[in-house]
Amino acid sequence: MAIVLGPNQYGKAENRLVTVTRDGSVHTIKDLTVSTSLRGDLADTHLTGDNSKVLATDTQKNTVYAFAKESPVGEIEDFALRLGRHFVSSQEAITGARVLIDQHAWERIDGHDHSFVQGSNEKRTTAVTVEGDRAWVVSGVRDLVVLKSTGSEFHGFPRDRYTTLKETDDRILATSVTARWRYQGVGGADGGIDWAETFAEVRRLVLATFAATHSLSLQQTLYAMGEAVLRDRPEVAEVRLSMPNKHHFAVDLSPFGLENDNEVFYAADRPYGLIEGSVLRDDAEDAGSAWHTLPAF
Amino acid sequence: MAIVLGPNQYGKAENRLVTVTRDGSVHTIKDLTVSTSLRGDLADTHLTGDNSKVLATDTQKNTVYAFAKESPVGEIEDFALRLGRHFVSSQEAITGARVLIDQHAWERIDGHDHSFVQGSNEKRTTAVTVEGDRAWVVSGVRDLVVLKSTGSEFHGFPRDRYTTLKETDDRILATSVTARWRYQGVGGADGGIDWAETFAEVRRLVLATFAATHSLSLQQTLYAMGEAVLRDRPEVAEVRLSMPNKHHFAVDLSPFGLENDNEVFYAADRPYGLIEGSVLRDDAEDAGSAWHTLPAF
Amino acid sequence: MAIVLGPNQYGKAENRLVTVTRDGSVHTIKDLTVSTSLRGDLADTHLTGDNSKVLATDTQKNTVYAFAKESPVGEIEDFALRLGRHFVSSQEAITGARVLIDQHAWERIDGHDHSFVQGSNEKRTTAVTVEGDRAWVVSGVRDLVVLKSTGSEFHGFPRDRYTTLKETDDRILATSVTARWRYQGVGGADGGIDWAETFAEVRRLVLATFAATHSLSLQQTLYAMGEAVLRDRPEVAEVRLSMPNKHHFAVDLSPFGLENDNEVFYAADRPYGLIEGSVLRDDAEDAGSAWHTLPAF
Amino acid sequence: MAIVLGPNQYGKAENRLVTVTRDGSVHTIKDLTVSTSLRGDLADTHLTGDNSKVLATDTQKNTVYAFAKESPVGEIEDFALRLGRHFVSSQEAITGARVLIDQHAWERIDGHDHSFVQGSNEKRTTAVTVEGDRAWVVSGVRDLVVLKSTGSEFHGFPRDRYTTLKETDDRILATSVTARWRYQGVGGADGGIDWAETFAEVRRLVLATFAATHSLSLQQTLYAMGEAVLRDRPEVAEVRLSMPNKHHFAVDLSPFGLENDNEVFYAADRPYGLIEGSVLRDDAEDAGSAWHTLPAF
Repeated sequence: MAIVLGPNQYGKAENRLVTVTRDGSVHTIKDLTVSTSLRGDLADTHLTGDNSKVLATDTQKNTVYAFAKESPVGEIEDFALRLGRHFVSSQEAITGARVLIDQHAWERIDGHDHSFVQGSNEKRTTAVTVEGDRAWVVSGVRDLVVLKSTGSEFHGFPRDRYTTLKETDDRILATSVTARWRYQGVGGADGGIDWAETFAEVRRLVLATFAATHSLSLQQTLYAMGEAVLRDRPEVAEVRLSMPNKHHFAVDLSPFGLENDNEVFYAADRPYGLIEGSVLRDDAEDAGSAWHTLPAF
Repeated sequence: MAIVLGPNQYGKAENRLVTVTRDGSVHTIKDLTVSTSLRGDLADTHLTGDNSKVLATDTQKNTVYAFAKESPVGEIEDFALRLGRHFVSSQEAITGARVLIDQHAWERIDGHDHSFVQGSNEKRTTAVTVEGDRAWVVSGVRDLVVLKSTGSEFHGFPRDRYTTLKETDDRILATSVTARWRYQGVGGADGGIDWAETFAEVRRLVLATFAATHSLSLQQTLYAMGEAVLRDRPEVAEVRLSMPNKHHFAVDLSPFGLENDNEVFYAADRPYGLIEGSVLRDDAEDAGSAWHTLPAF
Repeated sequence: MAIVLGPNQYGKAENRLVTVTRDGSVHTIKDLTVSTSLRGDLADTHLTGDNSKVLATDTQKNTVYAFAKESPVGEIEDFALRLGRHFVSSQEAITGARVLIDQHAWERIDGHDHSFVQGSNEKRTTAVTVEGDRAWVVSGVRDLVVLKSTGSEFHGFPRDRYTTLKETDDRILATSVTARWRYQGVGGADGGIDWAETFAEVRRLVLATFAATHSLSLQQTLYAMGEAVLRDRPEVAEVRLSMPNKHHFAVDLSPFGLENDNEVFYAADRPYGLIEGSVLRDDAEDAGSAWHTLPAF
Repeated sequence: MAIVLGPNQYGKAENRLVTVTRDGSVHTIKDLTVSTSLRGDLADTHLTGDNSKVLATDTQKNTVYAFAKESPVGEIEDFALRLGRHFVSSQEAITGARVLIDQHAWERIDGHDHSFVQGSNEKRTTAVTVEGDRAWVVSGVRDLVVLKSTGSEFHGFPRDRYTTLKETDDRILATSVTARWRYQGVGGADGGIDWAETFAEVRRLVLATFAATHSLSLQQTLYAMGEAVLRDRPEVAEVRLSMPNKHHFAVDLSPFGLENDNEVFYAADRPYGLIEGSVLRDDAEDAGSAWHTLPAF
């Protein structure tokens, strides 16, 4: 028996980057949180502390900031690809890079050139993996919190010894959507995908499907969201969704002689249901390393 | 020497209340976090554990939910006043009530009657105090995060032995505004104040002033905000503002042979500047108990 | 009518300071979060943006780190007093300073000279106010979470239309203690108070009283804690306590044919009771500015 | 091309469970956060909203609480195995179950039978997977925060265009350890593993190795920890570690004419290094589904 080093990676997490671009007096800002991690021939540092192949995480941080100046950041997918390819191509020992970016939402204050107010807590995300001259892009949205005040039922579930839940044909359905979609056709050349358009369209489809689906289970809503995306967006191979069921319980007002016709709810914190699932094309491009070390199921 | 009971209060904090109102098939939701606290003749429970004057915090919670059904919640100020007056008038031992409400932002999903997406993290707030037949209302906004990418300078500050900060005539100015404004003319009758309109207008003035003020210090911006509100809104006696200086440091790119002309910034978490101040009318109505136990300065 | 500047303060919040002291090969660490704020003749910066009296918050930060080197940090009260007195005495415009320090807990890893493991989330705190040559010290503890699994009752409370809570003579009582105690006899000279000893003793008394008190209400436990401290520690004038009632609800297992004899509990997050109160000597030294801008009730 | 359902799971997350066990007047408490998730033949609910195979997440929650009464909770691994096996064996459609448990730390208040104070934020964890009659156990610890004030170097790393980091032969090394170890020999029968002993020993080894290793890189420390565990604990097949490098920067005091001989540090929040790695036996039992949907690398 021997003890050996298994899979490993290292990097700099949560580099907070804000860029300002000027078009005359009109400014545009981008607010990103960038995390990089590298893989490769890293046994030496683990076994002997020899760091000759360890590009310092401080250097990774510097690279993020320098790259933001050297050419326009552009879409987060492009920026992540640039960073990932740089690390893999410039360091012989580094064979793989993963770049995670969250983009935070800001809106212009009406009528002002250079003043902004933070938008919702929702984040546009990407997770880019580069290995040699291959690349995978998984983009997404998280903390997209939605609620429908009717049009949701839950019944027909099995009843065992521990089941007390009443069936319902009208409940509040609320969730915080984390969606990740894997692009196909990225290859080494990015296939001319319009990242911003896909993001906008996927987000629109997720919201519209949530709203329009008369839901018999959160699973049904989840699947419908994924299906709507895949139907409409050929550049997407697969969608993975993680959706907590943010319970809103109708308060029992009968002790006070009041009827509660789904008007007054208690919004609970914990526990919460957690529904996770994936929807994909049966002829989807192979996932390769796209999901490696990302939350999956 | 004797040991005595000093000021005290008790209540139920962070009741999460969501209400649904229907107008035909069109639903409207309100998402509130309600905290109540009561004061009065409460020595017994402290000294002997006799609870005969202690309206249970569980009862306070029930009251919040029942009141949400008994009549429309309406504006948070009205709901808080109703709750506070109920507690004070219905319990002989209770001489004062404080009701805090945060209202969370939701927006309708385009074209859908009963589906919503959570808005920004910004909260509309109120803190209502009732004592006997008197009442005070302090409303506000918090977590209103704003940034301007130019139009902010900071120089002319004293330099002592520990000063290293460079003067600047162009920096990012970013803050998360917590504003509280005290209404006057509330008295026992609420004076016909349109809470929703004042909120909307104060928020608009805060954003517009932040954007329009060429800032020489965050203090100057803070004062300008308060002044703009008081100039425009006679129903407001006083504004208190707490504004962290969310530092965005221009990254030194010179080691990489790059110039950073205020394009690339590191957004820091801690430490942060913290600017707090109040602006008031010199003939403002006496504050009475309005600010009692609220953060103040 | 004129619009005027009211009370205000500014400073640098949450400076994270860790110091290492060496006694031969044996190291000792201190892990502090230090916030400073200054008051005084600050109208200019608010009204015109003239910063000639504004000691930069960056300078305040530098001062914290430099002072940590210039002489040993010592107890947090002493360090806060040194900082506060420095700001007030060295800047003519500054008439008042408030220094808040949280000390984070670390324990030595058994048998190792310079290795440590973080202790509980509990913090030792101080809030020092300096005005001219006067000073006030309010020290405390927060996030001290305690639970007793029996020895707590709650009954005899009034029942109104909205009361549904059952009386109980046996429940879990759990809370997260925030205690602040105001020292007397500090004056200009600190009166030779042994801050570390008082902290250790107050903490011990709080825990012992929580454990030993058969509780008929959390208010009774709160008062007993304060009383125990005042009985024992003549250097303390007043104790203020804020104690959430962290509800643990016995789960109703009867649907499963099981009895729950206070064995299985659901630990709830929100809402929670919140009990706040103060206990003081009737001949306590005047509080002066000790509590100014601190949470109070 | 068809659109199909991919991997999915659902369950109830973060059930907060506290149990009290009595031995005469001496009480013992357990404070757990339990999350369950189920997999199996769940296409119907996704595709049509037919819930006939969906054991409600509410039922899963009830089961957690009922099981805590039906027999003693015991070690978290045993409790998780019981729950997982129940779900898989009692529901025909359910072929797999994952149970995650965090155990929160409490200590007895000196000399008191039924009073406790919360310990450190560190959690003992387990992730149990059951599929048919097979089971895997991955236990761990997280939020175990450690720091050494010397005995850590970092040098010899490559210097590219973006490298500015100075080499150092003395720095603070601090991290928050998340360790997960996979047991072997669990099979269907649990192999008589003493979960509590292994946990205590692994934790001891992790702390002792962190303290004793003169570190040339955090990777070296990480590997040494895993190796120490595997050397000593034959029941462990593999250890995975995720360790942020919690940077402590020596403050430059030279502008104030002061030397900082590694005495005064700024503890930074973000960004942070993030070192992740695994150490395993080359003849380790196959991992099977042990890590499925757990954070991995």
